Amino acid sequence: MINLNALALRFTYTPENTALWILNQTLLPLKEEWLLLRTVNETIGAIKTLKVRGAPLIGVTAALSLGQSAIKGASYEQLADEAQALYEARPTAVNLMLCMNRMMAGIASRKTPDELLDIAIHLFNEDVSLCARIAENGAELISSGDHILTHCNTGGLATAGGGTALSVIRKAGEQGKAIHVYVDETRPLLQGARLTTWELKKLGIPYTLITDNMAAHLMQLGKVQKIIVGCDRIAANGDFANKIGTYGLAVLARYHRIPFYVAGPYTTMDWACADGDRIPIEQRNASEVSGVEGVFGRVEWAVPDSPVYNPAFDVTPAELVSRWILDCGVFTGKDFQDDRVRQSMLHSALQI
Amino acid sequence: MINLNALALRFTYTPENTALWILNQTLLPLKEEWLLLRTVNETIGAIKTLKVRGAPLIGVTAALSLGQSAIKGASYEQLADEAQALYEARPTAVNLMLCMNRMMAGIASRKTPDELLDIAIHLFNEDVSLCARIAENGAELISSGDHILTHCNTGGLATAGGGTALSVIRKAGEQGKAIHVYVDETRPLLQGARLTTWELKKLGIPYTLITDNMAAHLMQLGKVQKIIVGCDRIAANGDFANKIGTYGLAVLARYHRIPFYVAGPYTTMDWACADGDRIPIEQRNASEVSGVEGVFGRVEWAVPDSPVYNPAFDVTPAELVSRWILDCGVFTGKDFQDDRVRQSMLHSALQI
Repeated sequence: MINLNALALRFTYTPENTALWILNQTLLPLKEEWLLLRTVNETIGAIKTLKVRGAPLIGVTAALSLGQSAIKGASYEQLADEAQALYEARPTAVNLMLCMNRMMAGIASRKTPDELLDIAIHLFNEDVSLCARIAENGAELISSGDHILTHCNTGGLATAGGGTALSVIRKAGEQGKAIHVYVDETRPLLQGARLTTWELKKLGIPYTLITDNMAAHLMQLGKVQKIIVGCDRIAANGDFANKIGTYGLAVLARYHRIPFYVAGPYTTMDWACADGDRIPIEQRNASEVSGVEGVFGRVEWAVPDSPVYNPAFDVTPAELVSRWILDCGVFTGKDFQDDRVRQSMLHSALQI
Repeated sequence: MINLNALALRFTYTPENTALWILNQTLLPLKEEWLLLRTVNETIGAIKTLKVRGAPLIGVTAALSLGQSAIKGASYEQLADEAQALYEARPTAVNLMLCMNRMMAGIASRKTPDELLDIAIHLFNEDVSLCARIAENGAELISSGDHILTHCNTGGLATAGGGTALSVIRKAGEQGKAIHVYVDETRPLLQGARLTTWELKKLGIPYTLITDNMAAHLMQLGKVQKIIVGCDRIAANGDFANKIGTYGLAVLARYHRIPFYVAGPYTTMDWACADGDRIPIEQRNASEVSGVEGVFGRVEWAVPDSPVYNPAFDVTPAELVSRWILDCGVFTGKDFQDDRVRQSMLHSALQI
């Protein structure tokens, strides 16, 4: 029997049965509802509606869903189609694509269902390790007394393990450093207000919730010592895509001379993508901006039929990043321009 | 009979009766409800709960409420107390204080009730003229083809006349310039999403609604040519307070080399306030950040009892401002350091 447990994902496998459960993140923090994902189609639906979210967790969930489909007897042709459909479920984060590439390779080489599931289980376990390494590497950069600003949700809810940016914060807290977190609410979908506050409360780390447009004011007052964010895709030159609002924080950090860190596993690196201009940005529904929706209900406040622009992500150029906190180490902008360092980053990724 | 009509204020006066009505701005854009303000206490309540809002409109409404109180037979002692209570209703915008100072001077010199009301009516009419002059002055800075980003609401709903920043945009449109407006939703109270979209739709000016954290991304893409905001208080050195989020826009504008304009009437100038550090910033309730409330109902999405920081305003230093668009002209940062120009600004204010 195999049992995988993450904050927002559970997977069990016995010879008789498999079960893939996700915590419906659209209902947090007011309701904790676990959803069974019985088919790849249900998984695709959960990804598109953000019931499962977070670049690493999406990739792992997709892989397990595909492994489950193999176990349940899907043909290789069907599995290949399902892998392709999962691959296309969301366009910006690259972890999903990387996980699907690994599964597709297994499908193409006609691995047995058990072997395919093993790849997915490996991806889950690997993500747990990657989070732990990111936490260790990043916590070195945090000092006692720091007030740290973060955006969106990058914790246990976003990964199979302890998170990316939030795992760094968590580790610093575990090391006994006195820290405090400013949480951007992260409009339009409020991942900060709903999810990061929920995690920080569970972790017992002091935090203060703000609206996104208050971050600059706090920096002006000298109340922010560090900014740490996660990422959905890092291009080969260090540019990265992350939740809308990240780029603005990076510019504000530069102006106020505040260190700006991005944290992610190597599975977020896209070596085939030369720079940020080549990262596709997902556009989402107008209704996310004209109101809000959740377990609290749906409310709409804008003038009906208001024209809306709703990019889910933006791209931060490498020149605005102080440090990249990866599982394989902490890197500078210079490192991303140094072929030897890049080769070693790539090599360490392939070792895992 | 006297009839004053603004987009969000109506006042009638006959020998038999006075009536002061305001459009309840907390219910817009979904419901247009007019409220009768029968007493100064009701006016103070309406100001504190933002049923009436906008720095210039608050000042004019308070003055008319006090004039009405005089007409209804309040004693000079009572009027002085009421003026003081109105003065203290909100701490950041200075227009309210300036209007109350004028009324207090009339009360101290024992003007008749009709004369006191005349001061209030003069303040209303003056604000209408000031808006028109701001519009004329500012529209010169707008070019056909401009995409203009604005924050909060600075239109007819915020003043007795056509508005401040939004009146500039409106005037440019009336001049036949092809313009388009990006409207920051302006969390937490959504004045952009609820009020500015409502005004722009009525005016027939094309607009796109965004969340506040999308502004930087639009600037990065080269989609914003100008930024215009209003103000709640301009210090003697040109620093100014405005709706939270304004300071961040100013920093982003500087980074992207986008002209950043602030528009306001001289009644927003506080010559007694040396610089922005001396402007008090109103702190508001946590519940505004942990959810939203309006005619659409109240919803709460954050983890219950989350610690919240909720400053209603921030301060933008003069060095980040490209131009101050006032009723008496368009000024540069150098002008604010030039005693002769400052004297002429002060002089032109006193002429009105």
